[in-house]
Amino acid sequence: MQIDARIRHEVLAINPAEKTLRVCDLNAGVEFMERYDQLLIATGARPIRPDIDGIDSVNVHDVNTLANGTLLRQTIDSIRPQHAVIVGAGYIGIEVAEALHLRGIKTTLVQRGPRPMSMLDDELGDDLAKILVESGLDLRLNERLEGFVTHNGKVTEVLTESSRIKTDLVVLGLGVLPESRIADACGIELGPKGSIAVDQHQQTSYADIWAAGDCAQSMHLVSGKPVHVAMGTVANKQGRVAGMNIAGTEARFPGVVGTAITKYLQTEISKTGLGEDEISALALESVSVTVEGSTLPRYYPGSSPMKVRLHAEKGTARFLGAQIIGGQGSAKRIDTAATALHAGFDLDQMLYLDLAYAPPFSGVWEPLVVAARLALKKI
Amino acid sequence: MQIDARIRHEVLAINPAEKTLRVCDLNAGVEFMERYDQLLIATGARPIRPDIDGIDSVNVHDVNTLANGTLLRQTIDSIRPQHAVIVGAGYIGIEVAEALHLRGIKTTLVQRGPRPMSMLDDELGDDLAKILVESGLDLRLNERLEGFVTHNGKVTEVLTESSRIKTDLVVLGLGVLPESRIADACGIELGPKGSIAVDQHQQTSYADIWAAGDCAQSMHLVSGKPVHVAMGTVANKQGRVAGMNIAGTEARFPGVVGTAITKYLQTEISKTGLGEDEISALALESVSVTVEGSTLPRYYPGSSPMKVRLHAEKGTARFLGAQIIGGQGSAKRIDTAATALHAGFDLDQMLYLDLAYAPPFSGVWEPLVVAARLALKKI
Repeated sequence: MQIDARIRHEVLAINPAEKTLRVCDLNAGVEFMERYDQLLIATGARPIRPDIDGIDSVNVHDVNTLANGTLLRQTIDSIRPQHAVIVGAGYIGIEVAEALHLRGIKTTLVQRGPRPMSMLDDELGDDLAKILVESGLDLRLNERLEGFVTHNGKVTEVLTESSRIKTDLVVLGLGVLPESRIADACGIELGPKGSIAVDQHQQTSYADIWAAGDCAQSMHLVSGKPVHVAMGTVANKQGRVAGMNIAGTEARFPGVVGTAITKYLQTEISKTGLGEDEISALALESVSVTVEGSTLPRYYPGSSPMKVRLHAEKGTARFLGAQIIGGQGSAKRIDTAATALHAGFDLDQMLYLDLAYAPPFSGVWEPLVVAARLALKKI
Repeated sequence: MQIDARIRHEVLAINPAEKTLRVCDLNAGVEFMERYDQLLIATGARPIRPDIDGIDSVNVHDVNTLANGTLLRQTIDSIRPQHAVIVGAGYIGIEVAEALHLRGIKTTLVQRGPRPMSMLDDELGDDLAKILVESGLDLRLNERLEGFVTHNGKVTEVLTESSRIKTDLVVLGLGVLPESRIADACGIELGPKGSIAVDQHQQTSYADIWAAGDCAQSMHLVSGKPVHVAMGTVANKQGRVAGMNIAGTEARFPGVVGTAITKYLQTEISKTGLGEDEISALALESVSVTVEGSTLPRYYPGSSPMKVRLHAEKGTARFLGAQIIGGQGSAKRIDTAATALHAGFDLDQMLYLDLAYAPPFSGVWEPLVVAARLALKKI
């Protein structure tokens, strides 16, 4: 196999009928046509940047590539900001807030919604808000970015409906959108949030065009509906499946269960499956329980509080999703719940999982299993 | 419901035909008959104590009850041993070795077999042996306890075929046997290692007699054969199931997948499913792989080495079991493998598990999933 890696070439258009690409050689500044037998679209995602004057100022940063991250660090090292504003309290916003906190930079986190991390259930979102505030973070909920005041090409104030926040540095954490414009332009079907619609083989609506990674949709195995999940793990798996199919070995990517994890200082947070908003949107009847347990038996040194929230379908007792917030060693346990979702387990099956127990690792009953037991009583 | 809790009463015999018990009141020293409608046998397990002169010396300790543990600690605090001998390198032996090491007591660990923790595959057992020795433990493999030299009611030397080991303290960690003698005496069917045979309801071969906990067998969900597993988690679940059935609500205990976990200083060890010896004994054709990964991405602070060994069935690719040895944060990940065993997953299903990824928690590909991918190539 010979790979023709054309660095600094941009594909301008796809012609599925003729199986050709219009390509621009960015070095030479010339365009040419390229034929393909099979085409993989792996264009990734682009950060959401609202169309606001001043957003292109030198001290407004995205953090969606390694280069972005390096640049942000260099900026911090050189301008030594006293104060920073992060816009958006999702994964990226929270992780940047942690990094700035650890560098001693006074930070304001502006979030449009009523809680940080809108993918969390209200109760856990409120817990997280409290933890953020207690760490000294200036958390502004229900505030929307409205504009920037700039001076000499730099943002000096961030404006929301209700406040003006003086700042040396702005970091955007508003999420990403699938980069599917070139696919859309040639008539490839799109899915949720404009992601490229694919089947289990990662095949698009054209038989010879495939898509994988942050530009493509995934099937959500719990809801049974397509979703857009921009995660490295998913991208990796989709890429493998697309590559195998293109190379002639059949492979299928079954889909995702929506697992995600992050941390803020000593607090770990994770989710898998459906949360209360997604359950409502699907009009599923469900029961929900919250369990306040601990990572280790409470008598054991190093035990931390650990809250688990669990949802199950009313009547069938089908497990729908779980969320964890807690101390060190809590959040990664979401993998057990994710695996149970892949298996389509009901609460009774979760009850008897033979999970590892010894006091340095956990209590006799995992909080997830306790939650399943309590939820079963409400089914 | 009224509970008649008769402390210091011993059941001497069961008469299933008449549904009566012969009971001794240990306070009054008198015997009497007691009727039952439903009988639960929850007699637990007893430590294996070889019939060797000197085994009842005051400085020879078991550690299978809380009282035993307290007594051992009191002994250590009062006699301040310079040297201890632990007989048996299973879970208990390893955990006691850690505790004695942390107290600065020079310790010899005597193991009959060629490796510590015989439930581990040879490769991981060898790794553990190395770690034990490097910590300063005097590990004697392939040595069998033959006798004790005693002086004034205390063991002063432990004798094996090949050595005499001077000591101030002896701890036995030779495992347990199900306490099923009273069940056996009245004709209840026994299962593996003399455990009480039960069905999924925890019902014995007599319809009105139930058994749960360390005295009873469990079904191994991977081998499909009964096993004796003396674990608190299993005992808890069996007790719940027996209680529900006795009280008139049907419940079934599906069985175990043989999950176990322990640690020695910084090293964590866990297992689920079948190991290579169990696979051989079942004459299953299998493929096995070992992956040397890390708990976190190698660039992330606090990352530790983590070795995963995985077995799958040749041909069907059915996942059969996994073992982990590694640093902090490694062993509890066995729960994902345990859940996959409950689900009866094959390697292809494990490949696409949507497990939680962020650099503070794991690499993009979990070592377990990498192992599944490598094993799939050998199927």
